[in-house]
Amino acid sequence: MAFAWIDEQAELRRRAGLVRTLRPRPAQSPLLDLASNDYLGLARHPEVTEGAARAARTWGGGSTGSRLVTGTTELHHELERELAEFCGFEAALVFSSGYAANLAAVTALAPHGSLIVSDAGNHASLIDGCRLARGSTQVVAHAEPDAVRKALRTHEGAAVVVSDTVFSVDGDAAPLAGLAEACRAHGAGLVVDDAHGLGVLGDGGRGAPHAAGLAGADDVVVTVTLSKSLGSQGGAVLGPARVIDHLVNAARTFIFDTGLAPAAAGAALAALRLLRGEPQRAARARAVAAELHARLSAAGLEAVRPDAAVVSVRAPSPEGAVRWAADCRAQGLAVGCFRPPSVPDGISRLRLTARADLSDGQIERAVRVIGETRP
Amino acid sequence: MAFAWIDEQAELRRRAGLVRTLRPRPAQSPLLDLASNDYLGLARHPEVTEGAARAARTWGGGSTGSRLVTGTTELHHELERELAEFCGFEAALVFSSGYAANLAAVTALAPHGSLIVSDAGNHASLIDGCRLARGSTQVVAHAEPDAVRKALRTHEGAAVVVSDTVFSVDGDAAPLAGLAEACRAHGAGLVVDDAHGLGVLGDGGRGAPHAAGLAGADDVVVTVTLSKSLGSQGGAVLGPARVIDHLVNAARTFIFDTGLAPAAAGAALAALRLLRGEPQRAARARAVAAELHARLSAAGLEAVRPDAAVVSVRAPSPEGAVRWAADCRAQGLAVGCFRPPSVPDGISRLRLTARADLSDGQIERAVRVIGETRP
Ligand SMILES: Cc1ncc(COP(=O)(O)O)c(C=O)c1O
Ligand SMILES: Cc1ncc(COP(=O)(O)O)c(C=O)c1O
Repeated sequence: MAFAWIDEQAELRRRAGLVRTLRPRPAQSPLLDLASNDYLGLARHPEVTEGAARAARTWGGGSTGSRLVTGTTELHHELERELAEFCGFEAALVFSSGYAANLAAVTALAPHGSLIVSDAGNHASLIDGCRLARGSTQVVAHAEPDAVRKALRTHEGAAVVVSDTVFSVDGDAAPLAGLAEACRAHGAGLVVDDAHGLGVLGDGGRGAPHAAGLAGADDVVVTVTLSKSLGSQGGAVLGPARVIDHLVNAARTFIFDTGLAPAAAGAALAALRLLRGEPQRAARARAVAAELHARLSAAGLEAVRPDAAVVSVRAPSPEGAVRWAADCRAQGLAVGCFRPPSVPDGISRLRLTARADLSDGQIERAVRVIGETRP
Repeated sequence: MAFAWIDEQAELRRRAGLVRTLRPRPAQSPLLDLASNDYLGLARHPEVTEGAARAARTWGGGSTGSRLVTGTTELHHELERELAEFCGFEAALVFSSGYAANLAAVTALAPHGSLIVSDAGNHASLIDGCRLARGSTQVVAHAEPDAVRKALRTHEGAAVVVSDTVFSVDGDAAPLAGLAEACRAHGAGLVVDDAHGLGVLGDGGRGAPHAAGLAGADDVVVTVTLSKSLGSQGGAVLGPARVIDHLVNAARTFIFDTGLAPAAAGAALAALRLLRGEPQRAARARAVAAELHARLSAAGLEAVRPDAAVVSVRAPSPEGAVRWAADCRAQGLAVGCFRPPSVPDGISRLRLTARADLSDGQIERAVRVIGETRP
């Protein structure tokens, strides 16, 4: 029968304790949330939700077509202008998701005959971009500019280096200065995914590339998502205007995808304006992460020192991680649980996100629960 | 310099007259819209925009995480239940876009060693799904079940046949009964993209698979988008519960993507309920398409007989199509303009969409303008 092999795979997952199920949450959850990517606590901010509501009323429930047909509104344009300006780039292009933005950037900037040098810890969307691109991919050791340099030396012609700025699993930062140097020595382009940097790193949350002095460089392209610090949905590519024009003409996930819904654009724009007006939110997210890490370490837990707002805590096993997260939940605390096959190195972890709006009391409570439920 | 090759490509595009630029539209456009995919005219319906607004207020501007972490709300669940029930399938899974839903369905259902048989006219997102999948792909002649049968006979083991139900360029329908028969003779699965069928074809807009008697079959998987007839953003996969469970566990664009924004889910749910209550909207969209086709043909234009709500009119050349669309716009009419490289066969067209809420007077006016501006 068609799809019979699915049942065998399901059985294997069951035996390995790796079955995933969806747990719909209510509108008002009693849980303390250290699992979402709502780093600045803006997803529920009244100006953000009103931004979404107003945009839906003004522009409709959807954008009604490809950005190249009817799907570009003045609202998309406004968001693109303000995002580019905030992050220090010449131009920006908004997509329906960060995933789509990554597919676009990598595929459109790595043509036939080019080399893609991709960090081993990169996000799935960058990896899928590499798989879809016409260029050939060399995966290099995690966060090692020397490995990048070596890979680039194997190739003549166009090349791009692709990396997360903050890796989503462990929350560690990429060596952006070293990567840029390696790229420049070779004439290669640098494409970095600042999904977990925007709103958290750099001056007032302008992102990791801004902090590294790479904003506005003619050989640097940045992708961001609107779904984490900006509390909405969507993604964007930031870069030189010529690169953005190229994406408009060449990126399949731009050309053949319906434009971002007005409500999502409106919510992201409202969040961006809030962040611009309250730049301390970025610093607070970093401070919360540092505090979480310090207290977890003091409690004897194996936490990775955070470079942004993600704090990763090692778990003994996939089942141990699942049980730990469930025990936290039973105590009123929501934490992320990353385990195979979602982790590149096979190591299971609890993943905590440091929201800017967590109080000291909430941080203390979270650390206590995590310590008490430790497997 | 990095990205120098981009300028050469831009120059080639300029010379070929194939440069694409974005034209942001205002909230209230004076144009008569025959370009959007808002087939039922629901994107601006007050219940749809209120559905978006209410969802944003209740659930926040974004879903805040992967559907597997914090990104599944009860609202997503409700939408999935009602979509599945409406279309006649056991279960549904909502994605951030139709593009993501297609990548998920194809990649997760075509494992290593399997064969994918893909129609030559398929949408870019299905093609990208084939490219990303571990299985190997055979592209077959457009809308020919015999070609599918022949391709399936070359392969032992798991196989899926992948097709649009309504092809996005010419608006012609796939031979679903023939495809299903070919699949069943071989034990292959059938994966069809009903992006342009949902809301237009089948009893009350239940879609092309429902019309073909394939709804709920254990060897049929359907993808839909929430961005066309449902006036929102997002996508979904419909099928047997075991297939949906498999996607939850295996589809990268589900696992590693932020959940659909609540406002988009709310808008789509409101649109679905409107359609259920006003099933005549589907028939009206088809009637408008037939009327458009009849009048265009009577005016001596080369229009393809529509199987759903897309009416395609051949243009003499890419430049001719661009000029034609621009001349229509100057006369107050927005039409789509499809040309290389967005058309698989290299033929340029005007693409008209038959909205259910077009009046007879508007249809008449549209046909008059198209005739008068003919190159
Ligand atoms: C590093 C990284 N890049 C890209 C994405 C995809 O962005 P989105 O969820 O907005 O599609 C994510 C997570 O979702 C991510 O963690
Ligand atoms: C046939 C078809 N499938 C899938 C899609 C992608 O859906 P979405 O735009 O919702 O991502 C489209 C158009 O956008 C389409 O025309």
